[in-house]
Amino acid sequence: MPRNFKLILSYDGTDFDGWQVQPQRATIQGSLADAIEGVTGERVLPQGSGRTDAGVHAHAQVASFALESPIPTENLARALNHTLPISIRVIGLEEVALDFHARHSAKTKTYEYRIFRGNVCPPFVARYVYVHPYPLDENAMLRAAQAAIGEHDFTSFAAVDPERGKDNVEVDNVRTIYSSEWLRDGDLLIYRVRGDGFLHHMVRNLVGTFLLVGKGSLRGDAIASILEARRRSEAGATVPASGLFLMCVEY
Amino acid sequence: MPRNFKLILSYDGTDFDGWQVQPQRATIQGSLADAIEGVTGERVLPQGSGRTDAGVHAHAQVASFALESPIPTENLARALNHTLPISIRVIGLEEVALDFHARHSAKTKTYEYRIFRGNVCPPFVARYVYVHPYPLDENAMLRAAQAAIGEHDFTSFAAVDPERGKDNVEVDNVRTIYSSEWLRDGDLLIYRVRGDGFLHHMVRNLVGTFLLVGKGSLRGDAIASILEARRRSEAGATVPASGLFLMCVEY
Repeated sequence: MPRNFKLILSYDGTDFDGWQVQPQRATIQGSLADAIEGVTGERVLPQGSGRTDAGVHAHAQVASFALESPIPTENLARALNHTLPISIRVIGLEEVALDFHARHSAKTKTYEYRIFRGNVCPPFVARYVYVHPYPLDENAMLRAAQAAIGEHDFTSFAAVDPERGKDNVEVDNVRTIYSSEWLRDGDLLIYRVRGDGFLHHMVRNLVGTFLLVGKGSLRGDAIASILEARRRSEAGATVPASGLFLMCVEY
Repeated sequence: MPRNFKLILSYDGTDFDGWQVQPQRATIQGSLADAIEGVTGERVLPQGSGRTDAGVHAHAQVASFALESPIPTENLARALNHTLPISIRVIGLEEVALDFHARHSAKTKTYEYRIFRGNVCPPFVARYVYVHPYPLDENAMLRAAQAAIGEHDFTSFAAVDPERGKDNVEVDNVRTIYSSEWLRDGDLLIYRVRGDGFLHHMVRNLVGTFLLVGKGSLRGDAIASILEARRRSEAGATVPASGLFLMCVEY
């Protein structure tokens, strides 16, 4: 009888080509699969709560996988941290019911996008932020962010993925956002968003659009009409991956 | 008439082969010289307050160089930050007297060595610490650190450099340490040392020796006899570069 595991991991995504395993590339999923195989001898493909893109970080990503190995959970967690690169850390591991699946069972996700607003960004912080020292109307950005709360079709904020829906399958871009706000923490301006799911590039496209509002090139009340338009070209640019953190996944 | 500059810079040393310029290597001095040339068209070799080794960081390293260019100081600082990699930042720049030299004029330097004592080191911290979660008698380490204060011959704590003193020139390994202490900051155990100068690897060899005291394999009062012996083999191993920061240079 295999045992099913829920693993929580934190990673610095800077030097990885994202979550999803790819041949000849350093990926989080691939590194994790290699570490599990190194420790237990079993080759499994851990399922993440979702893919993170190249350069995106995770404070607490969740992955699930099943193993035949009888290794005690605590020893497995410790051995994985001995085997994984220091830029990926197991911060939690527990045995869960066999029907638990990191992606299918997820109820909400929370992301943060961190913008450094000071004049000179310390080199020890630069990997984990988007540096934007230019003037922004932060109050207007906060008001604009509130317009994303609720159930909406987020097509205007989703990456145009040629693969997606190419078989004329109806694509559902409706998601529910429970909270959407900007916070200040010293030199950091942080967008924090919690929802039942996120489309590809959705957080980075929302932030790129809020930045247009902050710069004054878009009115704060334009968010509602951008949502209605359901056209990617209506929204702002995708901001860099370095500022994005998957903060937590709730089940 | 050239103008002489005092530049203060902060860097993440992880991805550099140290301060000193070397052909085909990414170095701090080389990156800085390239950036100055890119901005002003003048090729100069900025003089650091001292060399930092591969992987060593600087909170505030000081460099000096002279330029013919009439570029205003503030514009030069801004242009250098536009040109340098994000892992090197100019945090101060001022015009100084022509006889100022970052190394020769330095009166004291302060270093910190940061040890992460928690169970799992966050990946966003791992580049800037030495991870050591095993038991240590931190009070014994603090007492041992105090034995380094004062004027001593630090030969036992200096790297054996084949180049140094090879012409039978008398090598002066006497340095004065003004403060030497261990501090706690959450999960970080920090060695902070301030002195009139430091030999090659001296801070990392002192920390390696204090760790032997912390582990109980060396008595705290052994520091005095290790100093007296003036033999590198008497002291502990050189700890990894990742935990070391040049904090400030006083003039």
